[in-house]
Amino acid sequence: MPIEKIISKIQPLDPAAMQAARARQNELTKPPGSLGRLEELSIRVAGITGNPRPKLKHKVVLVMAGDHGVVAEGVSAYPQEVTPQMVANFLHGGAAINVLSRHVGARVVVVDMGVAVDMPPHPDLIVRKVAYGTHNIARRPAMSRDQALQCLESGAQVFLEQLDLGLDILATGDMGIGNTTPAAAIAAVLTEQPVEQIAGRGTGVDDSGLERKIRAIQRALQANCPDPADGLDVLAKVGGFEIGGLAGAILAAAADRRPVVIDGFISTAAAMIAVSLAPLARDYLIAAHTSLERGHHLMMKWLGVAPLLDLQLRLGEGTGAALAMSLVEAACKALDEMATFSEAGVANKENA
Amino acid sequence: MPIEKIISKIQPLDPAAMQAARARQNELTKPPGSLGRLEELSIRVAGITGNPRPKLKHKVVLVMAGDHGVVAEGVSAYPQEVTPQMVANFLHGGAAINVLSRHVGARVVVVDMGVAVDMPPHPDLIVRKVAYGTHNIARRPAMSRDQALQCLESGAQVFLEQLDLGLDILATGDMGIGNTTPAAAIAAVLTEQPVEQIAGRGTGVDDSGLERKIRAIQRALQANCPDPADGLDVLAKVGGFEIGGLAGAILAAAADRRPVVIDGFISTAAAMIAVSLAPLARDYLIAAHTSLERGHHLMMKWLGVAPLLDLQLRLGEGTGAALAMSLVEAACKALDEMATFSEAGVANKENA
Repeated sequence: MPIEKIISKIQPLDPAAMQAARARQNELTKPPGSLGRLEELSIRVAGITGNPRPKLKHKVVLVMAGDHGVVAEGVSAYPQEVTPQMVANFLHGGAAINVLSRHVGARVVVVDMGVAVDMPPHPDLIVRKVAYGTHNIARRPAMSRDQALQCLESGAQVFLEQLDLGLDILATGDMGIGNTTPAAAIAAVLTEQPVEQIAGRGTGVDDSGLERKIRAIQRALQANCPDPADGLDVLAKVGGFEIGGLAGAILAAAADRRPVVIDGFISTAAAMIAVSLAPLARDYLIAAHTSLERGHHLMMKWLGVAPLLDLQLRLGEGTGAALAMSLVEAACKALDEMATFSEAGVANKENA
Repeated sequence: MPIEKIISKIQPLDPAAMQAARARQNELTKPPGSLGRLEELSIRVAGITGNPRPKLKHKVVLVMAGDHGVVAEGVSAYPQEVTPQMVANFLHGGAAINVLSRHVGARVVVVDMGVAVDMPPHPDLIVRKVAYGTHNIARRPAMSRDQALQCLESGAQVFLEQLDLGLDILATGDMGIGNTTPAAAIAAVLTEQPVEQIAGRGTGVDDSGLERKIRAIQRALQANCPDPADGLDVLAKVGGFEIGGLAGAILAAAADRRPVVIDGFISTAAAMIAVSLAPLARDYLIAAHTSLERGHHLMMKWLGVAPLLDLQLRLGEGTGAALAMSLVEAACKALDEMATFSEAGVANKENA
């Protein structure tokens, strides 16, 4: 489906469902507001889904993988072959995201959006490879505009396939050695903040690695002149295939009224691309956690979202989003399953 | 069992188990440290349990209920009959703590430590009633020193009974109209902070209610002169039956090397009583969340614990602890179930 068509489907939240959820929260056996952010979350998910008592049965963590030509600049602490190795680890169930997804009862969906090598076939691997890694953004655009569009549409397509299998809430995740570099570049363009305020140590580069990374991003911005008013241009010039795929999935989720829990630094950059293309998508986003990566808080400020968790995570893969997704589910269960004052025969405040 | 005997059983954390857990964390397929506080948590639970790969299968939320004579001072927004009504709600599965405990796979254990009326018998209600509510602390001690001891020993006994049924991790919860008042009094004594810095609005008193509450606590401290160096005296003079029961359960959990996730304001006051009686118990505590109640952060600072969540909760019942318990379990599963670099054939940083 053309991405413009998906974007045009995105609607504002449903005020009637939110109002009904808010009214029910005030009837449940607890002081009004005492469940804090869980109450807010449940009301927002009501608005997202259009259901005043939403049920989040089918939970999906979408992990998209891609490689990045900019690793040639020495921006990562790990070699590029770790990308396919970790994708294999996801498929065998041994990575952090597998463990945490099992813990919260979510299924993990792994997509090769542009790993630099051919992955061995695996029944659970979805291949939507746009190319064998992006170009080195320090020298030229990451991808063509057509490829950027292909990322978005492939991501949306993967979402729709998963929707058919059952999907009530989406969490985003990523894998791609070097991908904090394009994510930081996207963030620097869209927030218009200095690169030094955005770029961090990723998987753990040392001081000289961080210096190389900052210079590579600065050169990428100078060489490519991404247009902050054009999300597709930003994605093409300094993005990544997995970032574009996630942005497309986010747009499709918003179009189909599903809440999206965005993970850390990379997923947040993808969400920024999505929101720059479709501002209404923002209300469908739930920020999972504050990443340790330097500029993440500036990106969340730009998006206007407040993270649920602060566990000092900096892994990606969707790890923070998987945990936060369980909190969103808990919030919706409280709304749906708690007894009201009258059902439970409990005296309300007004009767005191 | 006499509480002195339980206290004497409490040992420091196991350094060998912690060292083994830390070593394993560095072999797992992720950048070292990238799971942040989840890694720290797993290492601490290894030290608590003495198991380098702890498994938290049986999760228990212990909700203790009691009434408080100080409600005569007009310190609560809800009438006292809500205590037994909410206990009945817990037993019927309709309260927030029931929903959240089901969500995280924990069993809820409900104990009447001192509700002001006789509860109708229920197969799941454990009755350890010390008395029909405490005395009004604004005028006299909450309870006798013998009753304070009885609270601790009953709480420890309930823990041991649950241990026999299977208990790998304990979360604490409370119910008792008016109980933010004794909890704030305990906190003011032990932290030596002004009452105004500790007491908050509880379930939602207005400005004049808050003013009455602060004055009631100030009078309680003047009338009873609790000795901050004697935790049992503090409990007897300005505490509550459910608070003492929770303190006893915490001590017993520490003695049997089980992690304890402490909920909000009331549970934290109980933990302070436990730690004032047995400083080594502190290392067994995991702080669930920052309550909205005013002085909670000062209490956590006194305990030297850092909360996992900040969801603006102010309900009690163990709601924050149930959610945090699931994070602790997730942390231990990551430690236990993730593949190592060599198992997964993933290149480590040092090989780059």
